[in-house]
Amino acid sequence: MAQNDTVKLIGSWSSPYSLRARVALHLKSVKYEYLDEPDVLKEKSELLLKSNPIHKKVPVLLHGDLSICESLNVVQYVDEAWPSVPSILPSQPYDRASARFWAQYIDDKCFAAVDAVVGAKDDEGKMAAAGKLMECLAILEETFQKSSKGLGFFGGETIGYLDIACSALLGPISVIEAFSGVKFLQQETTPGLLQWAERFRAHETVKPYMPTVEEVVAFAKQKFNVQ
Amino acid sequence: MAQNDTVKLIGSWSSPYSLRARVALHLKSVKYEYLDEPDVLKEKSELLLKSNPIHKKVPVLLHGDLSICESLNVVQYVDEAWPSVPSILPSQPYDRASARFWAQYIDDKCFAAVDAVVGAKDDEGKMAAAGKLMECLAILEETFQKSSKGLGFFGGETIGYLDIACSALLGPISVIEAFSGVKFLQQETTPGLLQWAERFRAHETVKPYMPTVEEVVAFAKQKFNVQ
Repeated sequence: MAQNDTVKLIGSWSSPYSLRARVALHLKSVKYEYLDEPDVLKEKSELLLKSNPIHKKVPVLLHGDLSICESLNVVQYVDEAWPSVPSILPSQPYDRASARFWAQYIDDKCFAAVDAVVGAKDDEGKMAAAGKLMECLAILEETFQKSSKGLGFFGGETIGYLDIACSALLGPISVIEAFSGVKFLQQETTPGLLQWAERFRAHETVKPYMPTVEEVVAFAKQKFNVQ
Repeated sequence: MAQNDTVKLIGSWSSPYSLRARVALHLKSVKYEYLDEPDVLKEKSELLLKSNPIHKKVPVLLHGDLSICESLNVVQYVDEAWPSVPSILPSQPYDRASARFWAQYIDDKCFAAVDAVVGAKDDEGKMAAAGKLMECLAILEETFQKSSKGLGFFGGETIGYLDIACSALLGPISVIEAFSGVKFLQQETTPGLLQWAERFRAHETVKPYMPTVEEVVAFAKQKFNVQ
């Protein structure tokens, strides 16, 4: 266990994975010092390299002398180390398994689809990759409809594990929407997710630190030298 | 929650991921019906396709009307749905986070390294891939030494989450050892893991259904038409 209660988070403001860790800490009202690595793909601090020697990635949660890496792992740790309400994971074993399953789906399938859109070399490749991403989002839309039961979030009335997992897609999707002119979240195909995204961004525990669409797109344009 | 207590596991005897689910069920002394798909890469049952429409892979745990997919997810579900002793995951949040972190490392990095050895096109590629796998196993050896504290298993005196996660590597490593003539688990570089593997295979809750090295190698030789 932690030898003291100091909590620090090494993150990067534009990292969708860092966002997950921040949402978890804010939901649990954990006071923490935020250590931003402004452009972590280019330059990593000594503290980051020391705290996450295996992956060298943000986010890393520093709790006393302990370091916890990998965003979904950090979220689960926060839920377990601060067991006060609100719970981030659902209480029932099957609901927990379901939330973990879909979170993994997002990290494996949805992010792979996003990467394929970004990495496509020609128009044909882009079209195929965009189609694949739309399929993934359609499946996620169906999951949202079942899981939220009309209450607004994957977790029902409140933000839960799967909302946090899914929030990491919002920045990257905003960027590829802006670059490609294609709307991936739209009323016709993903009405639930579209409204969920607005609701999530506007949530009082999220809004103060979640980058806006404009900020993320401006950052990406600068990074990739796009006008 | 499950509407009844019937437990079935769709698995495949040679699947290292199915093994994980079986170990978890046996550790918890859960009575279950085992539904084997003998060569799941070639032929999948209707029940499997219906129960895991997203990935179409084993294992799938059927608990009453519920289906739980993805092996590590199944293991966590079993631990939570049958909360009796022994616990599979450690009790302390940091130890749980650490076990989950290394289980993910196995699935992401170690299995990628195994796949690279299998898929290498020439001797140079094979050498590079083998070197990478050895690096991964050296890191895992270090984790074993720290985590087991000389007590025999990653989980200490008893088989835990990380033991179950790591057990999935044993079959594939046996096969590539037999095919390549290279020893990946060996006294000089991974003494802890080498002894752990023997201890795990011989464990009374594992031995009755875990395929032996000879069985796995014979299956792979037949599958890949190797003499």
